Amino acid sequence: MSSTFGTLFRVTTFGESHCKAVGAVVDGCPPRMALSEIDIQPQLDRRRPGQSRLTTDRKEADAVTILSGVENGQTLGTPIALFVANRDQRPADYQALQSVPRPSHADFTYQMKYGIRASSGGGRSSARETIGRVAAGAIAEKYLREAFGVDIVAWVESVGDLAAPRIDPETVNREAVDATAVRCPDAHSAARMQAAIVAAREAADSLGGVVACVCRQVPVGLGEPVFDKFEARLAQAMMSIPATKGFEIGSGFAGSRMHGSRHNDPFIFKSGRLGTATNFSGGIQGGISNGEPVFFRVAFKPPATIGLAQETVDFDGNPAVLAAKGRHDPCVVPRAVPIVEAMAALVIGDLALRQKMRT
Amino acid sequence: MSSTFGTLFRVTTFGESHCKAVGAVVDGCPPRMALSEIDIQPQLDRRRPGQSRLTTDRKEADAVTILSGVENGQTLGTPIALFVANRDQRPADYQALQSVPRPSHADFTYQMKYGIRASSGGGRSSARETIGRVAAGAIAEKYLREAFGVDIVAWVESVGDLAAPRIDPETVNREAVDATAVRCPDAHSAARMQAAIVAAREAADSLGGVVACVCRQVPVGLGEPVFDKFEARLAQAMMSIPATKGFEIGSGFAGSRMHGSRHNDPFIFKSGRLGTATNFSGGIQGGISNGEPVFFRVAFKPPATIGLAQETVDFDGNPAVLAAKGRHDPCVVPRAVPIVEAMAALVIGDLALRQKMRT
Amino acid sequence: MSSTFGTLFRVTTFGESHCKAVGAVVDGCPPRMALSEIDIQPQLDRRRPGQSRLTTDRKEADAVTILSGVENGQTLGTPIALFVANRDQRPADYQALQSVPRPSHADFTYQMKYGIRASSGGGRSSARETIGRVAAGAIAEKYLREAFGVDIVAWVESVGDLAAPRIDPETVNREAVDATAVRCPDAHSAARMQAAIVAAREAADSLGGVVACVCRQVPVGLGEPVFDKFEARLAQAMMSIPATKGFEIGSGFAGSRMHGSRHNDPFIFKSGRLGTATNFSGGIQGGISNGEPVFFRVAFKPPATIGLAQETVDFDGNPAVLAAKGRHDPCVVPRAVPIVEAMAALVIGDLALRQKMRT
Amino acid sequence: MSSTFGTLFRVTTFGESHCKAVGAVVDGCPPRMALSEIDIQPQLDRRRPGQSRLTTDRKEADAVTILSGVENGQTLGTPIALFVANRDQRPADYQALQSVPRPSHADFTYQMKYGIRASSGGGRSSARETIGRVAAGAIAEKYLREAFGVDIVAWVESVGDLAAPRIDPETVNREAVDATAVRCPDAHSAARMQAAIVAAREAADSLGGVVACVCRQVPVGLGEPVFDKFEARLAQAMMSIPATKGFEIGSGFAGSRMHGSRHNDPFIFKSGRLGTATNFSGGIQGGISNGEPVFFRVAFKPPATIGLAQETVDFDGNPAVLAAKGRHDPCVVPRAVPIVEAMAALVIGDLALRQKMRT
Repeated sequence: MSSTFGTLFRVTTFGESHCKAVGAVVDGCPPRMALSEIDIQPQLDRRRPGQSRLTTDRKEADAVTILSGVENGQTLGTPIALFVANRDQRPADYQALQSVPRPSHADFTYQMKYGIRASSGGGRSSARETIGRVAAGAIAEKYLREAFGVDIVAWVESVGDLAAPRIDPETVNREAVDATAVRCPDAHSAARMQAAIVAAREAADSLGGVVACVCRQVPVGLGEPVFDKFEARLAQAMMSIPATKGFEIGSGFAGSRMHGSRHNDPFIFKSGRLGTATNFSGGIQGGISNGEPVFFRVAFKPPATIGLAQETVDFDGNPAVLAAKGRHDPCVVPRAVPIVEAMAALVIGDLALRQKMRT
Repeated sequence: MSSTFGTLFRVTTFGESHCKAVGAVVDGCPPRMALSEIDIQPQLDRRRPGQSRLTTDRKEADAVTILSGVENGQTLGTPIALFVANRDQRPADYQALQSVPRPSHADFTYQMKYGIRASSGGGRSSARETIGRVAAGAIAEKYLREAFGVDIVAWVESVGDLAAPRIDPETVNREAVDATAVRCPDAHSAARMQAAIVAAREAADSLGGVVACVCRQVPVGLGEPVFDKFEARLAQAMMSIPATKGFEIGSGFAGSRMHGSRHNDPFIFKSGRLGTATNFSGGIQGGISNGEPVFFRVAFKPPATIGLAQETVDFDGNPAVLAAKGRHDPCVVPRAVPIVEAMAALVIGDLALRQKMRT
Repeated sequence: MSSTFGTLFRVTTFGESHCKAVGAVVDGCPPRMALSEIDIQPQLDRRRPGQSRLTTDRKEADAVTILSGVENGQTLGTPIALFVANRDQRPADYQALQSVPRPSHADFTYQMKYGIRASSGGGRSSARETIGRVAAGAIAEKYLREAFGVDIVAWVESVGDLAAPRIDPETVNREAVDATAVRCPDAHSAARMQAAIVAAREAADSLGGVVACVCRQVPVGLGEPVFDKFEARLAQAMMSIPATKGFEIGSGFAGSRMHGSRHNDPFIFKSGRLGTATNFSGGIQGGISNGEPVFFRVAFKPPATIGLAQETVDFDGNPAVLAAKGRHDPCVVPRAVPIVEAMAALVIGDLALRQKMRT
Repeated sequence: MSSTFGTLFRVTTFGESHCKAVGAVVDGCPPRMALSEIDIQPQLDRRRPGQSRLTTDRKEADAVTILSGVENGQTLGTPIALFVANRDQRPADYQALQSVPRPSHADFTYQMKYGIRASSGGGRSSARETIGRVAAGAIAEKYLREAFGVDIVAWVESVGDLAAPRIDPETVNREAVDATAVRCPDAHSAARMQAAIVAAREAADSLGGVVACVCRQVPVGLGEPVFDKFEARLAQAMMSIPATKGFEIGSGFAGSRMHGSRHNDPFIFKSGRLGTATNFSGGIQGGISNGEPVFFRVAFKPPATIGLAQETVDFDGNPAVLAAKGRHDPCVVPRAVPIVEAMAALVIGDLALRQKMRT
């Protein structure tokens, strides 16, 4: 259940870590848009494992094939099925998990919910599930870029307690983000973050971090009161990404410590329309985009699967020590960057189509 | 659009600030549950304006009437329509807003989205929209309490930069919360918070804050992978409340600064089942409840409508000074407490019914 | 559950036969449309009981009040709550039903589904549920008329085995339909139908019939492949009306007896666009409107509640004889006419808004 | 849009006639059910083209692969992706259609709706779209059979004006249905129907027909008032199958010609529970199953694509004569049998899971 996201621009994902394939069906993409695999592959490449020493060793080409919905390089307006094979599976790495659920992982809850679980333990909580999202998000992003000029950029803002000095959301771009393996556009911070991740890896431990994201040129008027407010759908989208612990729009928790006289964003006249002088609102007021950059942050916990020995209990309650094998990321934020962008694109794409009902 | 929340336990809210009535239709409430208005009114009373010097002066009894779905004090399993009249309306207070949109309020975005807006400006972004949610949430809460023993308690954790020392989520209860007008169960902090709110009010300014919430005795196994993970639906629900800026589950943003070896919650055997020794997970792993208390925080911004003069521009871009009249809360968190509880109950009620498909 | 219909133009109905009120919430009606109760009341008046000797004696004014979503006579784009009080209730009429379920009525199935049922027996299967639909449908119809010139007319095509000679769907109008109490625009047939209904009533029996409906000026391109094809949504909508037994689009079952060479509708050039020479398709091809009149029929069974003694069994399986008291229609088709029109308007309104995503 | 069907047991289909693959994603299938391709393939084999002289010559093995959601022969409760390659494509057959839309086919409406269409003309209106439904339906059917003993059998009741004498819905089975290529369990009628289809084919013409279906052992209490009544969802499901023109539940249009005293199904006590002596209701009362066999009929028009020359106009309105090439069924009802069964299973599977919320 609930592998579908979106009302008009809808994506349904499928696939676990160790089945034949993962992917998605995108229903609602507008017709007559140029589309082929090369529009989708770059974001998958940014997401895929084995890119650097900062990520898991699992080797997957993650090459996408469009099965339907596109003919002669044009979308038909019909469902676009996206297919990515699973290749480098090592189920043996997961045998210990049959009896001992990993602390803070989904092994236990999947077993309790379904009465069964995939050999890899966490079933759909696997990072491989996000492949379908990233592929679908690349399509949404292409639509938004061509239709409205929307420009979405996410980056690593912090790793553990190392935070990059404020990156300018007005100007940051993907080239700057990809200049370092950790995907922090501040080179000095990036170097320290990378050292911290390598150290965590060598200690068989893991680290958390924060991804920030800006969406520029979002049209005014997107977001559906009441329950599908722009920030509400963003929050759902981001908190549906594995390992997320928090979400902030605009000023976020810091905004809760401010007075209204400081926090309010005064209107000004700029570029021929009303804008705001500051952007504590994060581009959204009353659940509806106001034309300023949409800005948000997502907190990721340290990955639960670590090589360090952990004292825990098995499914029967007997004491056990777990030292996980397998190939896992010591820190997910570098690879989370394209996932956050994809989910943002899926949210905005859906809200953009929904607003058309009023035109 | 999107005034409906939930898949099986569904609520649809209606009403603006200055129309004849606000309310909700609850569809999917299980049949044969004892229910009458007195089960709903207490939470509405905790939400309603005019409770103390900390809240707006608007006077509304907010008495709820059940129009349908209940007969002889029992739910029929059919839609329960909930009706609350609007009485104390002063549209004159809003006349200045016709030409000057309030900074950081929804006046501008509603106008841009719909090409029209209610005389009160922000339309459905009005706090009165939340009446329907609170009434519906009281029904969901009653169901959850009786079916599973679920116990939901929210409280004010901070106002501005005044934070209460850690409240124990295992034991905090509504009596302790309601012991002070500000709804912070730490008396010393409460006194300081109240002083800060009164000071803000006297300065014609406003203040933000944070509401924390715990849901105890949530059954194991609730939450629908992928996009309706428990925390994802909670995040959507909370970020759909007016004036919210952030959401954290369990460790939240602080968790992003930790190592996995510290952050992981080891399993232990307690009370005849697997539990965890710590609860950084906030009661949810892989999007599914694990039986520990579900714990989360919600950040609220300072209210946008303030009496202090603000330099801004009108809808035509001409410079204007706005000093809002009308009756507004200087700080929303005390009244947000029952709203957060209601939305939590709606999320859990829906997930509980959805999990039944697997039984 | 499932008291909501539509994806973008959504209606949620509420209310049983003997609760305080019935009504609906319409979410998604476009903003800036002139609307007041007088736009809605006429269709409710056509639906309400007590209009003639052909209908039940229950006396209800069924006066509608708009509670929200409209200000200064204009829609705001926010939910429109519609309220109609229940007044003339006689629960005593239903006491016998407590132990003996009416044959072919919903008493038994509601009891089995919910473990409880309303005192009137069939709960939401009551004809009074349709009040919310008719009110909501009047709003959808006004939108469609003003935006596209859509013109929806339903009429009684047959009562029992009395069928009116073919009525011309290109020209039939509501004035002709309402010229007789039975709502058959062929006066000669109408007289015979009315006599048949009166005879059934006098015999304490009931009669079925068929309602036909045409929707003219439906824009080309409405209908969502695959599962929300135009005719699929129409079929769902019509078969959700109480007492319906069948649905036909265009040629219907008669079409199944034809050869393709006869059944195909050749394209012709007319009025500056492609049209068809015949209309066996009923205005829909491949699930999408083609610009020709949408034409369909709906079969209604004879009402289950009759005064004639029926041999049956009680809930415990003991033999019983049931002769229903209460006030019931001897034939529902005259009052079903505005209900069919309303549901057609709700289907088309929703599909029209959904097609906008492609513009 | 709207390639998804179902609320809890959900299927999303994808694929056109001439893309790489067709298939479906099934989300919501209960976990721990034994499942492999051999449970699905038989219904696909009954649906596939080239089975006999009565069907199109297109050659497709239509072998299904399960990509996800099943491990070690057991369902995981996660999305089951189903994949069927398209192989025998002859786009050249469709070149004439580029300029001349086929009468009563979807070429014109797809072009008008999307501004583009697949080379095969009707895009998702292709019969190949139904492959995903049949595969998904086989899974739903297996669940229903094992959980409740539900037994679904469809058959050809008429071809053109040749109707089989009443087949007994209490006893008819698939073996009897498949005894003849036309899938009419009455051998004498079957022979005449087959001759009629062959004659239509030789005349380069086509024929319509009616499929009847019975669902036995459906649990009491399924169906969601108001808009998702059992018969309403069945009607939507059936009318979403290509080429359908009508739907009847129980007595259908014939019921509209009856009196209530004859049409009502008296309750009797049988097999330890309440049942009915007759079944004009078709197993459904008030939108909810009553435990009697669910019985319905679906009318199919004669296929639009015929070899006979038809006078029509091209997209520009110029007179044209169209004699379609390509491989098309002269009559769809024999192959529609498993499609009707699949859609029935998807409806019942979804309603069965939804009813669990009340247990």
